[in-house]
Amino acid sequence: MKVGFVGLGNMGQPMARNLRAAGHELAVYNRTREKAEALRQQGARVADSPADAARGAEVVFSMLSDDAAVEAAVLGGSGLLAGLEKGALHVSSSTLSVALSERLAEAHAKAGQRYVAAPVFGRPEAAEAKQLWVVAAGAKADVERCRPLLEALGRGLSVLGERASAANVVKLSGNFLIASMIEALGEAFALARKSGVEPQVFLELFQSVFARSPIFERYAVLIANAQYEPAGFKLRLGLKDLRLVLEAAGAAEVPMPLASLLRDHSLGGVAQGRGDLDWSALGALAAERAGLDGK
Amino acid sequence: MKVGFVGLGNMGQPMARNLRAAGHELAVYNRTREKAEALRQQGARVADSPADAARGAEVVFSMLSDDAAVEAAVLGGSGLLAGLEKGALHVSSSTLSVALSERLAEAHAKAGQRYVAAPVFGRPEAAEAKQLWVVAAGAKADVERCRPLLEALGRGLSVLGERASAANVVKLSGNFLIASMIEALGEAFALARKSGVEPQVFLELFQSVFARSPIFERYAVLIANAQYEPAGFKLRLGLKDLRLVLEAAGAAEVPMPLASLLRDHSLGGVAQGRGDLDWSALGALAAERAGLDGK
Amino acid sequence: MKVGFVGLGNMGQPMARNLRAAGHELAVYNRTREKAEALRQQGARVADSPADAARGAEVVFSMLSDDAAVEAAVLGGSGLLAGLEKGALHVSSSTLSVALSERLAEAHAKAGQRYVAAPVFGRPEAAEAKQLWVVAAGAKADVERCRPLLEALGRGLSVLGERASAANVVKLSGNFLIASMIEALGEAFALARKSGVEPQVFLELFQSVFARSPIFERYAVLIANAQYEPAGFKLRLGLKDLRLVLEAAGAAEVPMPLASLLRDHSLGGVAQGRGDLDWSALGALAAERAGLDGK
Amino acid sequence: MKVGFVGLGNMGQPMARNLRAAGHELAVYNRTREKAEALRQQGARVADSPADAARGAEVVFSMLSDDAAVEAAVLGGSGLLAGLEKGALHVSSSTLSVALSERLAEAHAKAGQRYVAAPVFGRPEAAEAKQLWVVAAGAKADVERCRPLLEALGRGLSVLGERASAANVVKLSGNFLIASMIEALGEAFALARKSGVEPQVFLELFQSVFARSPIFERYAVLIANAQYEPAGFKLRLGLKDLRLVLEAAGAAEVPMPLASLLRDHSLGGVAQGRGDLDWSALGALAAERAGLDGK
Repeated sequence: MKVGFVGLGNMGQPMARNLRAAGHELAVYNRTREKAEALRQQGARVADSPADAARGAEVVFSMLSDDAAVEAAVLGGSGLLAGLEKGALHVSSSTLSVALSERLAEAHAKAGQRYVAAPVFGRPEAAEAKQLWVVAAGAKADVERCRPLLEALGRGLSVLGERASAANVVKLSGNFLIASMIEALGEAFALARKSGVEPQVFLELFQSVFARSPIFERYAVLIANAQYEPAGFKLRLGLKDLRLVLEAAGAAEVPMPLASLLRDHSLGGVAQGRGDLDWSALGALAAERAGLDGK
Repeated sequence: MKVGFVGLGNMGQPMARNLRAAGHELAVYNRTREKAEALRQQGARVADSPADAARGAEVVFSMLSDDAAVEAAVLGGSGLLAGLEKGALHVSSSTLSVALSERLAEAHAKAGQRYVAAPVFGRPEAAEAKQLWVVAAGAKADVERCRPLLEALGRGLSVLGERASAANVVKLSGNFLIASMIEALGEAFALARKSGVEPQVFLELFQSVFARSPIFERYAVLIANAQYEPAGFKLRLGLKDLRLVLEAAGAAEVPMPLASLLRDHSLGGVAQGRGDLDWSALGALAAERAGLDGK
Repeated sequence: MKVGFVGLGNMGQPMARNLRAAGHELAVYNRTREKAEALRQQGARVADSPADAARGAEVVFSMLSDDAAVEAAVLGGSGLLAGLEKGALHVSSSTLSVALSERLAEAHAKAGQRYVAAPVFGRPEAAEAKQLWVVAAGAKADVERCRPLLEALGRGLSVLGERASAANVVKLSGNFLIASMIEALGEAFALARKSGVEPQVFLELFQSVFARSPIFERYAVLIANAQYEPAGFKLRLGLKDLRLVLEAAGAAEVPMPLASLLRDHSLGGVAQGRGDLDWSALGALAAERAGLDGK
Repeated sequence: MKVGFVGLGNMGQPMARNLRAAGHELAVYNRTREKAEALRQQGARVADSPADAARGAEVVFSMLSDDAAVEAAVLGGSGLLAGLEKGALHVSSSTLSVALSERLAEAHAKAGQRYVAAPVFGRPEAAEAKQLWVVAAGAKADVERCRPLLEALGRGLSVLGERASAANVVKLSGNFLIASMIEALGEAFALARKSGVEPQVFLELFQSVFARSPIFERYAVLIANAQYEPAGFKLRLGLKDLRLVLEAAGAAEVPMPLASLLRDHSLGGVAQGRGDLDWSALGALAAERAGLDGK
């Protein structure tokens, strides 16, 4: 396939290389031209602008650092939009805002072009090793058309539906889960340290008990299915433990705002008569706060 | 060994059974006597009180539901403390408060008895299948003395040091990590649903990308080592993504208090000049809030 | 009246002096005796123990710094409980926990004695100037009996009902309101400063617009009456403003966790279909989280 | 003066009326024309567009509901910007985003026009009664030029400096303070109710002790001056009280997320060695989280 690629940073560079390695014809563009030169040696054409990279291509990827960069490279002068042919496809892999993804979808539709959002999970090393996980959304035919390309980038592909921006929501949700775990770990390590537990010992325990166990997956299944009964571990017992955490943290002088938040939500669930549901019913409360059915 | 066991609930029952199966002589006590009868058939003696279960034993376990139950069974009339011989050892496996664990340590010391806190990770099924993970703390000789018993309960044992209550801190921290993940998942699923993503599709993604990957472990290592440079993913980029999450959640009318908390902490880190550290530097901020060195 | 007074710190000293000035016969006790000597000069008897201060008194006040001090002075050896005569009354003015207040109520009842909780609002200067506000709860006859004494301490008295500990709840709630305002001011000043507004100018505005206006009172009336319609200012407009605050704070790099919390609650209200109620409907949400009727 | 006024909603209508009553020549515009007719009877000219209202005017006010409305009425076709003469002044009284206020400042500067941000504090009744408080920022000469008009709208005027958007920051901060107090009251009433205290009794107390007292002002002064020593009431005592609040709230099953937040911040302050500063040192912590000097 004739493919364009705009944005050759830490992520874009190895992604473009993998597309080339899979045998596709490649035109690449990067704001600082040196990064493009490396790909020229592998047989890529170096374009002068995003529009130039798009010219003649069936599919053009963009992989840029933020909304402003995407706006400039796609909607700006000599942008991708201006160069893309009618019927050709823009695959947006950047982590961008849902609002901008929706604007891009509209702009491409108006220009008679196609648009798929396909952000990726994984760091540069994973991109290098073709171990990314791709999350794609857009019109079915469009996703199918670029499927071979997306599969050349990583170890797996989830297809989410017709609304492109849903893929961006999912990408952002994934990063939110990572941040949650970092914060939780940060607070737990602070408590452990102030209680005289060596970080390395706590780490060892985490590795043994949590990191490689299916524990998080099990809770995800319960929440996905809204299956809060019968309780494996009751919300009121979870509340008890959070109280004990905060008591210990108070004595050790360790502020744990995440634990406070969890205690308040658990307490609310108990106050509302859900103390005998499974602890994962925190998921029902989150849904109801959003105006959704908790079930 | 001659072993006593107090508390034969969902957890205690299979734990006691595994001790008996490992060949130890067992005396068991439970408030409602029927649960004890099942163990009589496997050769255990059914005791009339915690004190009676402790009589003549080298080691007595307690596995009860909360502080009040432990207080009653250990410190109350005909309690474990009253029956335990000088030099004999109480292994407390309940999830109890750090404060009570410290009171128990004192009370046993005063009575010339020994005390080890050894709470366990795992649900009843894990107890049944000898798959618990045990976290033990107390005087070294005491922990060694009951090691064969602890190893008969599960698949692994972490030994934390001389201060018994440290094991209780660690157990509570583990439950806190689970609750954090539940809350994070609850908020993420609420956002996904309101954005038109099917829960089953989001679940599939979570299973592919997060649940079985070493992602959480990697962050735990960074925080344990306070190794925030060089950044794999910068705090300021994490902040950007959290802003985008909250923007999307605002548009979809999904309150995400955990995301708000993470945004505020990330923003604080950037405001204080740490934007170029790794995202895991949230762990440094948690440490500093607790008056610890962030490094 | 014959009155005892235990605890002559910054608050107790002027309170005791005002009781003496109102003509009552006074016996005082303080752990460090020097503070009691000052009152001897005004005609008070200096007692050797809380029990001694209580001996022969109709009413004994205690005004101590925390739960531990109250426990020791009332329930400990030579404590107030031991010295108080049957039918005599203990007025507890300390800011203590609801749980301890309930334990005191029980202990006095068992001993055939009377108990009123009467914590006070105001700092030492207010105590000095007889400007405290007293919040009393307990059996009606008991509150009436000590009414002249309570009125001698301040400018006003609220009587709350028969359950003594309700007065402690109210005292703690008052301190919570103060802390909320401090935190809110702290975050607002941080935002103002980072936006180039002089603290003194922001202060002047606060003094003109908020501090002496009935604005907070108006919202308290709406919440007390659960009168959220017709809206003076709609919840959805409040949400809009909180979003703008957070946007400005994000740009200025000012974390405002309280604003985040308020945004999440407002967003939840809107998501649940309450966007057209008055902004004070945040009070309805707080009530519902507690399992109360929001109305 | 020749004055234009765009936006005759609940706030704009009485504001325009007061300008007319003060003797100024008035041209008014509203999207739904009926609202303008009322002012025609008082001698105002009814304009066909914001541009038309601006034509020939020395000063034009805008008072609209949100960013989108302001953008349309000022920057859109037949907008205020298009009609305003060189050197004439736009006074923006809407509660709008800091970002949009900055864009307006730029757009007017580019067009050779003048711009002052002058949002107001007060509800429609206050506008009616000329009791608004106006907060103005912009070039000194411009503020002076419209001062008589601003003074005709209310009971007071604070002038903030040369950067117009600072007035918007301050307006938003004011609304944030109100929301904080509403949330705090909501949580306090929920606790009071669940503890058996009648809302009307708690309200009476609030009115007596808080609403008309200078208590909030005193804390604002301490934070504005960063004067945290000597302590009137120590942070560590404040922490103690917040713990007691949360303990009582836990027992009554009342989630109080604001109290949790305050506890965590107070605990952090104590952990960092500031327990002996005044409670208002929460303000220092807020400043430091923002990367400011806490002093």
